[in-house]
This record gives sequence, C-alpha cells and structure tokens, in this order.
Amino acid sequence: MRALIPFKPSNVKSRLSPVLNPEERLELALCMLQDVVDAIRDSAVEEYSLLATEPIEGHPCIISPHGLNRALNEAFKEVSTPLVVVMSDLPLLKPHHIDEITSEDGVTIAPGRGGGTNVLYMRKPQRFEAHYYGASFLTHLDLARDKGIPARIYDSFYTSTDIDVPDDLVEVLLHGEGRTPRLLREWGFEIKTNEGRVKIQRK
Amino acid sequence: MRALIPFKPSNVKSRLSPVLNPEERLELALCMLQDVVDAIRDSAVEEYSLLATEPIEGHPCIISPHGLNRALNEAFKEVSTPLVVVMSDLPLLKPHHIDEITSEDGVTIAPGRGGGTNVLYMRKPQRFEAHYYGASFLTHLDLARDKGIPARIYDSFYTSTDIDVPDDLVEVLLHGEGRTPRLLREWGFEIKTNEGRVKIQRK
Repeated sequence: MRALIPFKPSNVKSRLSPVLNPEERLELALCMLQDVVDAIRDSAVEEYSLLATEPIEGHPCIISPHGLNRALNEAFKEVSTPLVVVMSDLPLLKPHHIDEITSEDGVTIAPGRGGGTNVLYMRKPQRFEAHYYGASFLTHLDLARDKGIPARIYDSFYTSTDIDVPDDLVEVLLHGEGRTPRLLREWGFEIKTNEGRVKIQRK
Repeated sequence: MRALIPFKPSNVKSRLSPVLNPEERLELALCMLQDVVDAIRDSAVEEYSLLATEPIEGHPCIISPHGLNRALNEAFKEVSTPLVVVMSDLPLLKPHHIDEITSEDGVTIAPGRGGGTNVLYMRKPQRFEAHYYGASFLTHLDLARDKGIPARIYDSFYTSTDIDVPDDLVEVLLHGEGRTPRLLREWGFEIKTNEGRVKIQRK
C-alpha cells in the first residue's frame, strides 16, 4: 500500500495570516506535514510520496505542475496497489487512524469539517477519481455510488481536524502530541479559556 | 444505565442569532434535543431525563434552579447506576455512539470542538464531578487521573459536532439524517460551495 500527500508550499495556509507571517506559515505547514509523515511511517503503509509542485527537501516527491485533482488523477492511473491520499494539515493524525481507514475494501473517506475529504482510501485507485474542493466529501461518496464501489465513512474527530484558520490551532494545543503543538508553544501560543469554546492567544 | 441531558430554554443558542430569530433558535434547540433523545432511546440506555431549569413538554425532567455544574453534581450523588451525560445540541449523534461510549469501565469523554465535553460517561457517577465550561475536556481528564479513575477519549467527528455558531449548521446539512437537517431545509438553508470550507446560506 502507498500513501500520497499533496503539498503546495506557495502561499501556504493563507487563512492563518491573522496570526502567523508567511515564513511561520510555511514552517507550520512543514511541521504538520512531518507529523503526518510520522503517523504514516508507523502505519501499515509501505511507501509514501508527496505530490508537490516543486521538490520538498527531506521527502520523496512526485512533481506535477497541475492542479490538485488533475495531478492526483494522473497519479491514480499509474498506481497498481491500494492507495491512501492524506492531507498534509492533519497534526492529530495517528498511525491507528491510517490502519483503520485502510482496513476494508472499496473506498473509505474521512471527512474534514466543512465538507472536505481529509483522508481518502481506495483499494483500486484506477477505478476512482479525485474531486477535491467544495463539498468533496459528498462528491466522493456520490462518485463511489455511481461506480458501484462500496464506500465507508470513517468517523474520527482527530482526522476531521484540518488546520486552516486560527481557531483550528486550539485543537492542536488541546489534543496534539507531535511536533506541531511544540512549535506553537515555542511561538508563544496558548489556550485562552472563556465562556464558550476555548480560543488561542499569543504571548 | 441512565442518561441525563442538560437543557436550558432561556436565550438558547444565542450565537446563532446572526441567522435565526429567538423563536427559531428555541425550535431548533428542541429539534436537536429530540434527535439526541431518539439516538439515546435506540441505545442501551434504559432511562433518560432532561436536567432543566423549567419543565420541558414531552420529556421527563429533573428541575434544578442551579447552574449546570452544581445541578449535575447534585444529580451524580443520587445516581447508583452508570450514567451518561449527553449535550442536547448533537444532531449527528447515533445510537452506536452511545453504546460505544458506555461500553467500558471508568470514565469516557467524547470531546467537542474548542475543548468542550459533549458526552461524559461514568460507570460510578458518585465518584466523579462535573466541571463544564472552558476547557472541560482537559479538566475532566485531569480529574479522572487525580481520582485514579481510568479515562478514555472517544474519537468521533459526529459526537464532536455540537451546534453553536452558523458555520456548525453546515455539518448538519452535510452529514445529518434526523429531524434537524429537515427543519433547516424547510427554513431554506442550503450549502454554498466555494473554494474553502462549505458555508450555509438561506434562501
């Protein structure tokens, strides 16, 4: 089994700009990527590659100039093994999540908040297609049904937690155990308790 | 096994006021409560009560004038069976979640986003204490450790999805199957797809 991790370093994590400058956003993105790679390495996945627009130091990379869906769909055609596509901004991902997601036939989707597809597993990637962006969770479920492929939803709070906006960083501080919460704490981020949901603040 | 569902009808779900008027917010809150009750009724729970500040029609109620924590802690002292405390704003809750959460000894906590405790199961509620508000997820974990009670985290996207702010309604439309998504659709809510996370709009 193989894993593909799409990664695009240019203008990365722009919606975190209220709390992080461009250099910090890139450092955070690479740190979350490393947490994801660590989880994948300790799972049953045999080999991983980034799917990137340019080489990323320290990681095996498939380089494609195309957008996410086209790049993935070209990769799917060339893979003869089961394949799991894992987003790079899932710092709460653990090896057991990967192992559970990849344990059954057909297609398994771990949804992200707001309709995203955070992890997509395909036993036969040649039969499937990537349709990321928008409500891709629904699109991928519909596609599996149209193709007659059994589809399963993987229900996990930790795999649903992708990091896009400042409030998302709260979950890393509350639940994270990898490199990403350490980096955020080094930068002075801490949780701020009030009446509703916990927020972040930077010292 | 018993279930307690705290419910406070006054000024309910005030953070939804950008998209719903006070009457609609109360109707939504009662609808989500009914979805939660439906899930509990189809689980292994034998008996449920609301823990409320005033009687709520159609539901068995324990009435307490006190705040959430004091009201719960007084109830915990009087319960001799295992007890699960379930928030009333979890419209994606299913019976199997309740059954899995209540399957082990000690304490099990299903976190909400932003540090909340959405479901709290105690095999021996007399030994535990409620500390809701703020980062109650961490407080409850710490309390279990201090008391030497085994604590388990229940990792579910669906149980983590409590409905507080307009963006949360998206998850109900994307993933819900009960009464609450029907009510939102009747009111003209639909999902709006753009580049990032899906949003809601009202026709």
